[in-house]
Amino acid sequence: MNYQKLLEQIHKKKSFLCVGLDSDINKIPQFLRENINPILDFNKAIIDATAPYVVAYKLNTAFYEVLGYEGWLQLQSTINYIKFNHPDILVIADAKRGDIGNTSYQYAKAFFEIMDADAVTVAPYMGKDSVEPFLKYKDKWIIILNLTSNESASDLQTLHIEENGDLVYEHMLKKALEWGATCNKSMFVVGATKAESLMFVRKIVPDHFLLIPGIGAQSGSLEEVAKYGFNEYCGLIVNNSRGIIFASNEKDFPKVAREKALEMQQKMEEILRKNFII
Amino acid sequence: MNYQKLLEQIHKKKSFLCVGLDSDINKIPQFLRENINPILDFNKAIIDATAPYVVAYKLNTAFYEVLGYEGWLQLQSTINYIKFNHPDILVIADAKRGDIGNTSYQYAKAFFEIMDADAVTVAPYMGKDSVEPFLKYKDKWIIILNLTSNESASDLQTLHIEENGDLVYEHMLKKALEWGATCNKSMFVVGATKAESLMFVRKIVPDHFLLIPGIGAQSGSLEEVAKYGFNEYCGLIVNNSRGIIFASNEKDFPKVAREKALEMQQKMEEILRKNFII
Repeated sequence: MNYQKLLEQIHKKKSFLCVGLDSDINKIPQFLRENINPILDFNKAIIDATAPYVVAYKLNTAFYEVLGYEGWLQLQSTINYIKFNHPDILVIADAKRGDIGNTSYQYAKAFFEIMDADAVTVAPYMGKDSVEPFLKYKDKWIIILNLTSNESASDLQTLHIEENGDLVYEHMLKKALEWGATCNKSMFVVGATKAESLMFVRKIVPDHFLLIPGIGAQSGSLEEVAKYGFNEYCGLIVNNSRGIIFASNEKDFPKVAREKALEMQQKMEEILRKNFII
Repeated sequence: MNYQKLLEQIHKKKSFLCVGLDSDINKIPQFLRENINPILDFNKAIIDATAPYVVAYKLNTAFYEVLGYEGWLQLQSTINYIKFNHPDILVIADAKRGDIGNTSYQYAKAFFEIMDADAVTVAPYMGKDSVEPFLKYKDKWIIILNLTSNESASDLQTLHIEENGDLVYEHMLKKALEWGATCNKSMFVVGATKAESLMFVRKIVPDHFLLIPGIGAQSGSLEEVAKYGFNEYCGLIVNNSRGIIFASNEKDFPKVAREKALEMQQKMEEILRKNFII
């Protein structure tokens, strides 16, 4: 999916919502757990219920890997299901991979060619080598961890680099631009709990999409995020996982998930209008 | 596997060699590629041939994930094979994961409980949250990326932190100690191409094991690494992948891998003796 198509989706659905399929086997409704493919069945129901309101699904690989190869199979099947039924929705593999040289190419191939995800999250600790192979794919996206929503982001990301005075996350943004991470093939993860920092991020990458986790369970505010993070085209994809997918534990879980997604979409529509984006 | 047992293995085998099972489907001998489980068959042959000379096997997950869920199955089967036949050898899942909170716990569970690896590599960009869940397991190891062997490590790892004057990798070592990454449950990845930097690493973590990639294909020198990296108990695990597992492409590949592993072991024995470690 390219930049233009993503913008079209945002306009069409009046939404910049990403639903995180963090489909923890211990949190999905009890009655599904005895199924042969419980996570896949859960995901299908959530996808069918929420697709009209979302522009992206994000699959956190940890929740699939914890089920061994059967989990991996359900991860792949979920992606196939989205691609077949909702080809206009961006599929993000939230894998936070990051390796070098030949290994990095293998990861790019694994997620973009074999799994056919549209986007994959990558950690930049090892520098350019861990990012570059992902940039070679047309209409695929690398989403680079930048300023994360967790408390211990301060262990590294918000310290200063002596050589240039930048904060580490600012430095990493500038580096990414040097590496060729243009706005039509790369995004950055910026936590919603750091809404004001979005201003500083926007100074360096005005046109890039930012993937914002931390709305809902991690209690960031959508209004704050839009205030500091919007660019003239929107430029945000905001993720919510638990607040939607685990909103009910009963048979009505797809219906309740749908209501929660709709609620988010309506908030987003209001904010998009207020900012004259739609 | 605990610290003491790892030391015993080093003494018994007179080796600190790790063989990297970077078993690229495009590089294993042609005649194996039509097998139902080509990677598993390749790995078993390499393991049977080299086990007497190695203290650890490192499985780089990228080369398995690129084969989809069947790759994941062969990854798991390889680990099962090592654990059953060579329970004294450390199994490292070179996964370079790194996430936060609940997700980080899922990764720890996936690799330590489900996959039953002894150790897993983790990227520290997100700070304490991405490391802590792995420290809660007894006799399991987290191996934290610190100073990697690739050129673009200089994009971040070898810059200075303004707040304390440390290089980023030094800062991350000190942070890890604060997080409780003691030497009986954590190691650090330090590239062999940066042998002199091992001196600075050793000042901060004198007792920890260091996992050293970059010998062989990436052309680090074993003598240099030992000179700057040894502590009185050895304290190093040195990895070689391609130089051993792909030393021959023919039917004789296990025999040639055995010879290459033996050659490395003999060099290591000599260096261990010279340094009065054995």
